Amino acid sequence: MILETINSPKDLKALSEDQLPALSAEIRQKLLETVSKNGGHLASNLCVVELTVALHRVFDSPNDSIIFDVGHQSYVHKLLTGRYNEFSGLRKFGGISGFPKRSESEHDPFGAGHSSTSISAAAGIAAANLLCGSKAYTVAVVGDGAFTGGMIYEALNNCADKDRLIIVLNDNDMSISPNVGGMSRYFSKVRSSAKYFRFKNGTKRFFASIPLIGNGLIKCARAVKNSFKKIVLSQNFFEQFGLSYYGPLNGNDEKHLERVLNEAKDDGKCSVVHICTTKGKGYEPAEKRPDIFHGVSGFDIESGVVKNGSAESFSERFGKTVCDRAEKNEKIIAITAAMPDGTGLTEFSERFPERFFDVGIAEEHAVTFACGLAAKGYIPVFAVYSTFMQRAFDQFLHDAALQGLHVIITLDRAGLVGADGATHHGIFDAAYISEIPNVDFYAPADFAEFEKCFDKALEASGPVVIRYAKSGESNEKPNHALDGLKYSDFGASPKAAIISYGRLADNAFEAARILNGRGIESRVIRLNSLSPLPSQSVFDLVKETDIILFAEEGIKNGGIAQRFFADAAEAGILNEKHCIIKAIDSEFPTHGSNEQLFEALGLSAEAIAETVFQAARVKNHEA
Amino acid sequence: MILETINSPKDLKALSEDQLPALSAEIRQKLLETVSKNGGHLASNLCVVELTVALHRVFDSPNDSIIFDVGHQSYVHKLLTGRYNEFSGLRKFGGISGFPKRSESEHDPFGAGHSSTSISAAAGIAAANLLCGSKAYTVAVVGDGAFTGGMIYEALNNCADKDRLIIVLNDNDMSISPNVGGMSRYFSKVRSSAKYFRFKNGTKRFFASIPLIGNGLIKCARAVKNSFKKIVLSQNFFEQFGLSYYGPLNGNDEKHLERVLNEAKDDGKCSVVHICTTKGKGYEPAEKRPDIFHGVSGFDIESGVVKNGSAESFSERFGKTVCDRAEKNEKIIAITAAMPDGTGLTEFSERFPERFFDVGIAEEHAVTFACGLAAKGYIPVFAVYSTFMQRAFDQFLHDAALQGLHVIITLDRAGLVGADGATHHGIFDAAYISEIPNVDFYAPADFAEFEKCFDKALEASGPVVIRYAKSGESNEKPNHALDGLKYSDFGASPKAAIISYGRLADNAFEAARILNGRGIESRVIRLNSLSPLPSQSVFDLVKETDIILFAEEGIKNGGIAQRFFADAAEAGILNEKHCIIKAIDSEFPTHGSNEQLFEALGLSAEAIAETVFQAARVKNHEA
Repeated sequence: MILETINSPKDLKALSEDQLPALSAEIRQKLLETVSKNGGHLASNLCVVELTVALHRVFDSPNDSIIFDVGHQSYVHKLLTGRYNEFSGLRKFGGISGFPKRSESEHDPFGAGHSSTSISAAAGIAAANLLCGSKAYTVAVVGDGAFTGGMIYEALNNCADKDRLIIVLNDNDMSISPNVGGMSRYFSKVRSSAKYFRFKNGTKRFFASIPLIGNGLIKCARAVKNSFKKIVLSQNFFEQFGLSYYGPLNGNDEKHLERVLNEAKDDGKCSVVHICTTKGKGYEPAEKRPDIFHGVSGFDIESGVVKNGSAESFSERFGKTVCDRAEKNEKIIAITAAMPDGTGLTEFSERFPERFFDVGIAEEHAVTFACGLAAKGYIPVFAVYSTFMQRAFDQFLHDAALQGLHVIITLDRAGLVGADGATHHGIFDAAYISEIPNVDFYAPADFAEFEKCFDKALEASGPVVIRYAKSGESNEKPNHALDGLKYSDFGASPKAAIISYGRLADNAFEAARILNGRGIESRVIRLNSLSPLPSQSVFDLVKETDIILFAEEGIKNGGIAQRFFADAAEAGILNEKHCIIKAIDSEFPTHGSNEQLFEALGLSAEAIAETVFQAARVKNHEA
Repeated sequence: MILETINSPKDLKALSEDQLPALSAEIRQKLLETVSKNGGHLASNLCVVELTVALHRVFDSPNDSIIFDVGHQSYVHKLLTGRYNEFSGLRKFGGISGFPKRSESEHDPFGAGHSSTSISAAAGIAAANLLCGSKAYTVAVVGDGAFTGGMIYEALNNCADKDRLIIVLNDNDMSISPNVGGMSRYFSKVRSSAKYFRFKNGTKRFFASIPLIGNGLIKCARAVKNSFKKIVLSQNFFEQFGLSYYGPLNGNDEKHLERVLNEAKDDGKCSVVHICTTKGKGYEPAEKRPDIFHGVSGFDIESGVVKNGSAESFSERFGKTVCDRAEKNEKIIAITAAMPDGTGLTEFSERFPERFFDVGIAEEHAVTFACGLAAKGYIPVFAVYSTFMQRAFDQFLHDAALQGLHVIITLDRAGLVGADGATHHGIFDAAYISEIPNVDFYAPADFAEFEKCFDKALEASGPVVIRYAKSGESNEKPNHALDGLKYSDFGASPKAAIISYGRLADNAFEAARILNGRGIESRVIRLNSLSPLPSQSVFDLVKETDIILFAEEGIKNGGIAQRFFADAAEAGILNEKHCIIKAIDSEFPTHGSNEQLFEALGLSAEAIAETVFQAARVKNHEA
């Protein structure tokens, strides 16, 4: 094994060229073994094996900075930068992250998780190097998918003067799903146009060989030649931003990569190296279905069969529901930001192609585009992960809510997301959505509730947000319902109330059962509507309880629990009541299974029960 | 007067071509008269007079949709679409808005205020038209400044298939300040390159006239001709996104504009019409200094002398402070998103040009770029208006806070902004910043506090945000200081506490004086630190008070007041206390003077005093 002898990029540089193909094969094997067990990103890592090897042989990390956009393709980088031994713990609680992380290694100069940030970060690092006189290089590795995100262009617009900044455009014509839009078509034209490069050279020769008959033609030919040089040769997309351009070249040819990366390095200016790779390279099932092997929960290496959860997920139920309603209501439009599968919109895209829009990794555009549709009377439904909706906070506020436009946002992956970790947890939406005026905001816990919310959303006149977790529906069936909430009593005269919403309410019910077993009677209130918040109904329900605990699978500051207790304080109903908030308090939770995270955050059923139990003891003591 | 006879675009179409120059002159006069009195955007409106006339003669609003990016250049549009009579009330309380507004006119199909949204909205409207079979046109008028914002590219990437969508690129080489970056240089190359267009046509003729000597050359010439057509002619920036391109043309030549807009209309595809205009056109002082006349509070038409506030503003003090500290600490970097003047960074940009970065209207990039600098040990200070920071919510959360990077954000225009109105009020930052973990968050009320906060920010190790209003410092001098707050007592044993922060604290002090005059003693607590929130210190200070009123110049839900009362509920200190929040409750405040808005929102000193007074009466009654 060569791979296990690589403790740092230095060891990699010491290898002979002949050893590299074997090393690449070993890396691919290690990727397969680990991701098939732990889950994670496969296809994108398989495709950057040669690139990552070349980068670490040409550049000098950590003196030079190598930044991976999104970061899901940084596994090879981790294997080559001293994390081979920790690799089996990838994405596990306490193990290494599935994304680059500054705290994990000096070779991770900038963390990631969300798309299209790498060139901005690299521009900052390159500017810092220039300012302090360092000759270090900064490399940003960006997939072509990230070029559907606007930040890339903001950064490109500010790169031309950043020396020793090299942007590797890793072009595999896929992000998670096939890429969309004008830029993707442009890249594909460049890729397929070997002609283009022949033409560039051929034309120069052609002009040089023109027989010069008469002065007019000479002048014309010269004028054309000059204009040609000045204007036409500079018309490559990246050159329009003032950057040098190399490519396109075969990104799975390690030798060739080293040669061109060295050229770009010697150039010393800000340059773009455009490489073409095959997603899933070297593992047939992944080459055939790179979309399925983009992110997997695990699979059988031999057969290529992917593990799937058996229970129906909220995403799936959303997908079915929106198809069903769209069948009856032709005003319904579905929008995704490069996630048709993840958000459950695949069936919709097939059944209603003319009403389906995949806008690329462009949440900002998605929301304002939806607003344009709504302004004309359509009902756009933008399905997006909670964490990615953070990108469109301003657009939702400024274009949708301020104008009161009837757009529906379904927030998938709301709450903790397990192994993807800190960059992907959807723990802020309850806070950042509920502060925006004019928005109806729901958090259904089961599919029946979800469908009701969705139908209310279709009937609404302004913006509506519906949040749900990655998991399936709750099996809890509360006995009582009021507008915007349901509740159950555990015991005849509950002295404690536990309030929650969404998936975490299951832990509240479980806590109530535990408490009942320990002699504490309690009432569990599960909120369905977060805005408007049915505070008055809750006040009625907690009149007789000494203890009110609000458990929230989201950030504490600015969240629903704080809002509820502030409402309660204003209403003057808190006299002699013991008030407790269990939420995520000023931290970014790490990765691991959701159960492990609930426990670590004090949000497990046991932790909730114990907190109420202790409070009850205090109350009894006081009494 | 022709202008006063124009009640709708129909009247405009009925005019003969000869009448148009006179009309344009009348429009310019009306703009000068109104903006010199009411304040507002001048230079950008002067430059689109001919364009707006041409648009309303060529297109059929409101059936066709005309959308103005940012919307500050929509005054001419308002004058021509039935709002001539209301124009004197521009930007005044109860008057028409300084931006397009759906609720104001059917001719305003999409509101704006923040940059770079128009093409996304237009794409949505165009998609809706296509879906329902309408043949209506959609026009987005976008300045070249907006092309520094990433949303434009997300939208361009999704436009090629949107028929009858026309993007007018209004290129005056300025946004508020001169534009920056690669795209700006590219546009300027195109503008100055009349050659380019001569070349395009000249070359076609040239190829047609080549004497065909020998088969090889014929073949070569043909190959070149074909490749030329396919590749070279299609290399214009917009054509790379699959759009048609017209231009550049003189955007102050109405006749020419009509002709080309009609061409684009007949084309029927998605096209870009690139026009070059002169900012401030027709008013010499504005042509000379378009930056000063971008947004003004008023000016003398004759002399061109602009009205300025006399008291020093927070922006100015920030500008001085950052220069002073940068003199001593060479790690300090200043960043602006196209607002060097507005944020007070002009002096810095002159004194430390190598440490100053204007990144364009690109808040997202600005924050992540700052993070890159911070990762290398620099201390970037990004000065940005509160409302525009909403754009970078995710970048601040995901790149700065999650990684704990030492970036400083100074939030200017925090709180109400008066005449600019709903799209520009900085009333959400207290909520959306305080929910993010790892962030120190300050709201200084006077310059001494500001400088202390800024110095603490320089010494910190993670992200710091400092917010301040557009106005100058507070003259209140509270008697007592604790960590993170100051307070004063009005009366010997206060029974009411009024808590506030920033500019609104002045109203709290004033309210306390009013209350004292009415026999109610109170304590005013002015918070300086919002995160961490010095709740425990406040608890100590409100022990003896029956009434706690928290007044906040920001949104109520998710805000600091709710957080404080939730903390107080958890701490169990609210028994028998009357708790009141005065904040902006689930609404987007309109435009007007801040005093008018305070009154309308119940945040004036009188309203606060009255609320406490009534609560005290209830308390006395209870007692």
